Amino acid sequence: MESFVLSEWLQQHVFIRDDGPAYLRLYDLIRRTILDGHLTAGARLPSSRSLAAELNIARNTVMRVYDQLTEEGYVHAGVGRGTYVEDISQDLVEPTVHEQTAQNHADDRTVPSRNLSRRGRVVLSHLGFSNVQAGAFMPGVPEVREFPLKVWSRIQNRLWRKDPWDLMRYAPAGGYGPLRQAISDYLGSVRSVRSSAQQVVMTTGIHQTIDVATRLLCDPGDTVWIEEPTYWGVRNLVLSSGLQPIPIRVDDEGIRPSEQDLARPPRMIVVAPSHQYPLGMVMSLARRRMLLDYARRVSCWILEDDYDSEFRYGSRPLSSLQGMDEDGRVLYAGSFSKTLCPGLRVGFLVAPEAVAEAFANAVAELYREGNMVHHAVLNEFIRGGHLGSHIRRVRRRYAERRTCLIEEIRRHFGDALDIVGDDAGLHLILALPDAVDDVVVVRDALQQGVVTRPLSTYYLDRAGARSGLLLGYAGVTPDEIRPAFDTLARVIGCYLQTMEPRGSALRSKTHWHTVTSAIT
Amino acid sequence: MESFVLSEWLQQHVFIRDDGPAYLRLYDLIRRTILDGHLTAGARLPSSRSLAAELNIARNTVMRVYDQLTEEGYVHAGVGRGTYVEDISQDLVEPTVHEQTAQNHADDRTVPSRNLSRRGRVVLSHLGFSNVQAGAFMPGVPEVREFPLKVWSRIQNRLWRKDPWDLMRYAPAGGYGPLRQAISDYLGSVRSVRSSAQQVVMTTGIHQTIDVATRLLCDPGDTVWIEEPTYWGVRNLVLSSGLQPIPIRVDDEGIRPSEQDLARPPRMIVVAPSHQYPLGMVMSLARRRMLLDYARRVSCWILEDDYDSEFRYGSRPLSSLQGMDEDGRVLYAGSFSKTLCPGLRVGFLVAPEAVAEAFANAVAELYREGNMVHHAVLNEFIRGGHLGSHIRRVRRRYAERRTCLIEEIRRHFGDALDIVGDDAGLHLILALPDAVDDVVVVRDALQQGVVTRPLSTYYLDRAGARSGLLLGYAGVTPDEIRPAFDTLARVIGCYLQTMEPRGSALRSKTHWHTVTSAIT
Repeated sequence: MESFVLSEWLQQHVFIRDDGPAYLRLYDLIRRTILDGHLTAGARLPSSRSLAAELNIARNTVMRVYDQLTEEGYVHAGVGRGTYVEDISQDLVEPTVHEQTAQNHADDRTVPSRNLSRRGRVVLSHLGFSNVQAGAFMPGVPEVREFPLKVWSRIQNRLWRKDPWDLMRYAPAGGYGPLRQAISDYLGSVRSVRSSAQQVVMTTGIHQTIDVATRLLCDPGDTVWIEEPTYWGVRNLVLSSGLQPIPIRVDDEGIRPSEQDLARPPRMIVVAPSHQYPLGMVMSLARRRMLLDYARRVSCWILEDDYDSEFRYGSRPLSSLQGMDEDGRVLYAGSFSKTLCPGLRVGFLVAPEAVAEAFANAVAELYREGNMVHHAVLNEFIRGGHLGSHIRRVRRRYAERRTCLIEEIRRHFGDALDIVGDDAGLHLILALPDAVDDVVVVRDALQQGVVTRPLSTYYLDRAGARSGLLLGYAGVTPDEIRPAFDTLARVIGCYLQTMEPRGSALRSKTHWHTVTSAIT
Repeated sequence: MESFVLSEWLQQHVFIRDDGPAYLRLYDLIRRTILDGHLTAGARLPSSRSLAAELNIARNTVMRVYDQLTEEGYVHAGVGRGTYVEDISQDLVEPTVHEQTAQNHADDRTVPSRNLSRRGRVVLSHLGFSNVQAGAFMPGVPEVREFPLKVWSRIQNRLWRKDPWDLMRYAPAGGYGPLRQAISDYLGSVRSVRSSAQQVVMTTGIHQTIDVATRLLCDPGDTVWIEEPTYWGVRNLVLSSGLQPIPIRVDDEGIRPSEQDLARPPRMIVVAPSHQYPLGMVMSLARRRMLLDYARRVSCWILEDDYDSEFRYGSRPLSSLQGMDEDGRVLYAGSFSKTLCPGLRVGFLVAPEAVAEAFANAVAELYREGNMVHHAVLNEFIRGGHLGSHIRRVRRRYAERRTCLIEEIRRHFGDALDIVGDDAGLHLILALPDAVDDVVVVRDALQQGVVTRPLSTYYLDRAGARSGLLLGYAGVTPDEIRPAFDTLARVIGCYLQTMEPRGSALRSKTHWHTVTSAIT
């Protein structure tokens, strides 16, 4: 045997990241090697004794790694002696039937496989977007019919009369300067975000922000904590960027990593502390401090998705996580898709000072974006105080609609079904007994012309998923809400009725809440 | 030694892709392992004899792989016996001084390293974009001052008076339907592109088109042929997507892969057959047939970047490569950045039928794009015949400006310097003797307020790079061209003068052309 043998090969791999305990590094290496397909199903791992000897580490360490990999389903003990790689191809590439059913509620989407890349097939087998973007009760959509067209076009026409040639060119790094300043000022006063204009980098929305953050800060194979459940876009962007999303459960105080989670620090944590999506809770102050402290200790990044915290009905919002960050670890992501309208495609990120220029350059280099016509109009719109007025106006509207929807729910179901996450935002969740398949309810409702989204599909780990319906109310008037909910209530009623004779538990409010918060 | 030894490990790696000859797979594996940092500098490879025995392949095969890796600088023969991994960290991560100088001509960009990802550092160390987007002689920029503001805002205001709420929402997959149809019709008549509206997928420009294509069609580690030299955006997008760009030289007929290149089929080929960037040649019919035939034989994709073929001064353009494709292998990428203006951020791709839905879904899922306000205006703009009129009008303007610039060049330098690629597009290349460092000339000119770009920085392999200046003329009037070129000529003159006394060869026109076409 030559000097270049397994031990050397593995040592090279294992000690790439020369931080952290050996067992974590070994665990990471083997798992990654399985995930990227280099170690295929059925391959036999060396015995713990021989691998320990070769790597000159304790045999206990290797056994601990093998145990963990076994527990997580990456390997299994074979007949007799030996540890073998599990077949995980199903998890990686092919869509499960459940997922396909869930996602295809709005249209007929197929997953072609001819010559597509593996990562392409992963993206296409987990589609979260919907072609339906209007009507009761599409969540995540603001009332675009309230868009201040007149003010907007007045500003636009005034700009265009002044030879706006520079707005017609490719944007400079970071985007249109005056808008970056206006956003920095606005966030400082409204969200306690601390930034200079140089830290504000224009993007086309949260998706692009997440994409550039994962590219600039994470390498393929790195792990990223995402909230469980979470916005579909996060999951697919993380996957398509070659990263491994780790679902971290949330309770009433927000994200709640277990001891086991904490022992394996990720490269980045994506959270929505102001308004968890889709469950709607606000991250507690204690949890925020814990998260910032942890990020500092393990040197990881936090991406704060603050997509719609402007819309609260009652309590004042907590200020941003970014504003509490003393260590330059938090990237703040926002957009005007919820406050104004999605069709503008204007979003932004606030980068820590040390990497702000890197982000500005990377967005310019990778996307060559910058719709400066919209940027310039938006700049004057914000500086003229129109954004603030618009938000106050539609917030009143949304509050009425929220009340109307809650009344309809109570009228049909009394207290039998829970309402979750209705303190803020553009939607609420109508919890269903877990025995009712929310995906089926959503499909049936759609056939009756009512759009909803099934809560269970927002979970990465379907085993722990809750059943429920996301009901958007911001984009529909009370006159649209009432008949649509009558229809929806009939569909739901069918499933509740068929349950009861069979004695299934129609879970009470207490039960649902108990389950969501009783995470050990 | 356990059963899980090097031979098994390597076999698993080597036979992932179970197609192609063993030497290619072994070569690919080892190179990739070096590139991604798993095999680090100084590591010793096993002897060819022992590795051949372990893998059960011919020793000649291993020796051939080692030879190739040695030739390409990945490994070197050590003192005495043995083959050792070369230190390639410089090539991968840190910017070379030359590159930094070249790219930083327009501003002061630094590459922070604190906690950025490896791929992030790669992107930032090869920045190609420029914050300067106006003035003589910025290439790649159309005359935005000719943008038909009045027509455009008339259409826009008319649309906005009609309650355009659907344009304010998130876009459906593929983008705004009527525009997809309008583009399909337009491309059919002007570029012989064969498509249905369903194959047209709206993007925000060529960058996003390349990005989604590399994600959907290529997996990390795959190779992508790019033209040498090529547009900076291609290189960095391919790199940041985890792919390996292989530079393929071009001659007067376009891309010209060598026998060695052909023996290693890529997963995708990115070409600009209508107008090579930046050299400006048109790909010959023979070369197009060869390329299509090759793609069919080896089952790879072709991405046709057709960014500005509308602007030709003299000969009629050849029709698109897509129009000749019988096998659904060509993706056609276009945008309105050159024909109208970059600030709109409207581009598109035409996908082969089999993957069209996949592309529409992936763009919606990954980017959640679709600036439907612009889409709807553009739709009416095209259907009203305004795009055609605008292109005809600015083409006359650009032709005058091109003539003016060529006259200035001849007036100052006679035939001493070559003009390359001036038949079409928005720029031409003023070739410099290779002894003159174009990066230095560009920097000096910028200090005098004249913007140009150094040709040599568009090459991936600097060893074979030519010296020259990209001079954009479309965005500047004759009155702006003349004084700017006087300044530029003085800068160039200094370098030519300092050369001649030392006897350096001021290469003749014939010589430059000979070199570019004499590729074996």
